[in-house]
Amino acid sequence: MKEIKVFAPATVANLSCGFDVLGCCLDNVGDEMIIRENDLNEVRITKITGQDLPMEADKNVAGVAVKSLLTRLGSDKGFDIEIDKKILPGSGIGSSAASSAGAVYAVNYLLGEPYTLKELIPFAMAGEMLASGNAHADNVAPALLGGFSLIRSYEPLEVISLPVPPDLKMVILHPLIEIKTRDSRSIIKQNVSLRNAISQWGNLGAFVSALYSNDYELLGRSLKDEIVEPVRSILIPYFSELQKLSKEEGALGFGISGSGPSVFALCKGEKVAEKVRDSIQNFYCKKGIDFNLHLSGISNEGVKIL
Amino acid sequence: MKEIKVFAPATVANLSCGFDVLGCCLDNVGDEMIIRENDLNEVRITKITGQDLPMEADKNVAGVAVKSLLTRLGSDKGFDIEIDKKILPGSGIGSSAASSAGAVYAVNYLLGEPYTLKELIPFAMAGEMLASGNAHADNVAPALLGGFSLIRSYEPLEVISLPVPPDLKMVILHPLIEIKTRDSRSIIKQNVSLRNAISQWGNLGAFVSALYSNDYELLGRSLKDEIVEPVRSILIPYFSELQKLSKEEGALGFGISGSGPSVFALCKGEKVAEKVRDSIQNFYCKKGIDFNLHLSGISNEGVKIL
Repeated sequence: MKEIKVFAPATVANLSCGFDVLGCCLDNVGDEMIIRENDLNEVRITKITGQDLPMEADKNVAGVAVKSLLTRLGSDKGFDIEIDKKILPGSGIGSSAASSAGAVYAVNYLLGEPYTLKELIPFAMAGEMLASGNAHADNVAPALLGGFSLIRSYEPLEVISLPVPPDLKMVILHPLIEIKTRDSRSIIKQNVSLRNAISQWGNLGAFVSALYSNDYELLGRSLKDEIVEPVRSILIPYFSELQKLSKEEGALGFGISGSGPSVFALCKGEKVAEKVRDSIQNFYCKKGIDFNLHLSGISNEGVKIL
Repeated sequence: MKEIKVFAPATVANLSCGFDVLGCCLDNVGDEMIIRENDLNEVRITKITGQDLPMEADKNVAGVAVKSLLTRLGSDKGFDIEIDKKILPGSGIGSSAASSAGAVYAVNYLLGEPYTLKELIPFAMAGEMLASGNAHADNVAPALLGGFSLIRSYEPLEVISLPVPPDLKMVILHPLIEIKTRDSRSIIKQNVSLRNAISQWGNLGAFVSALYSNDYELLGRSLKDEIVEPVRSILIPYFSELQKLSKEEGALGFGISGSGPSVFALCKGEKVAEKVRDSIQNFYCKKGIDFNLHLSGISNEGVKIL
């Protein structure tokens, strides 16, 4: 039977000024998945390593995403899904999105690519719906398309791929504490001041302009969030100290990844990123908090065949 | 004594999704101004044609803007300002901004250009403060810089110039009714739903992307405003009919210019713009409402020396 092995990348969504609409794709953090056709007309999760996650297809985001694709296509084919889970669930860097995106990408490939990458997004969103009760697209879109994805609209869904300035690097700190996406959403106020909203859209407009013009300093100045960060950052140990530290070491900007607890520092160039990473590491070691730390580029490609 | 004659362009601000942060510069609608050095160490409004506006420098936006520039520069030079006012005050296409921008541009030129165009923006904003009680920059910035201006931040002031897709045309309808900017602001709610705010910043991000990628269709889809337009459009006779009509004739988008009552239709190409203009004209004639109507390109240059 046909099979394919893919790399399903981690992603950083809710990028400061781009809350709910902007995410990007990391190039060296992600899961590995093997998808294999079976002759049982059934979608099965046959193996999960690295993490303890539901093996029942209807309770696993990858299973749900694939079933959503097959249903739309009217296909009764069956697939076995193996996941080597390297992205920790609940880390805030698109763990569920990677599984959903990787699975629909692989199945679509094995079926002869009936759908474009953009058309796969809604199927992967079905996985997100299961994971967090909210079918957001700002992780699955960059996981499938690579680079920066902007969600212009949800109804109808419209995703725009934005250019990636070549020297961008990201440092990701994952404090090993758990925040459920569902809980993290519930603390956000459902009304915002017009004044803060205006700041936010001014900054997002500038961020998009900076991506097109490779203006790294402007990227940094635009990475502000006066709406969600002030509330959510309270859940992250030493958020403001980390933000200050990162900027002192030269990071362009610093914010919460997804719904946390991971945080990201966006940097220009590998050297600055290494300095930022090392300082964060020293700081968190001194505080005695367990953590994972990544340094990654922004990948122009999403899910990749291995 | 040295003198200069300038064209001070009309501008369209609050461009739908870019409320308070985005404006653009028209190329064939504007005032003419003559600024002349005098030896009286005094700023004077010496002549105003076309409109009945304050001749006292401290009560005229051009006088206030120039005085703000001279004060900052520590200069005691005097200037006479003549304004041939072609943009109707209260029309919503930057009448006060044109006078303020034209005056500071001309005086700066006569003084040997101590300031860059961007540095002139705060002086012109002093004129806006007098006109509307609010020192907004989204008219004066495009009036000085040309093209599309995005205000990323007010404190500190940062204005970003965005590219202009070559085929963009604007039809501007000015229904001859009066809405004071001050009143038009007071009806806006000071809190908005997070949901609407997210739509707005998704659209603004997409609009900026479309300007860089010359994606006219995306420009049109992004020109939405779920926050201010629903409230302000009530003040404009037949707003929704005009919006529908314009889109049927091929306009990319349709919205309120500034704080109204003018409305704009953004179009790709002269021919579509002419169709839109003619339909609007027929419609408003039938309704028996007096109006002015303009068809203009977006100018890459702001104030121009004549």
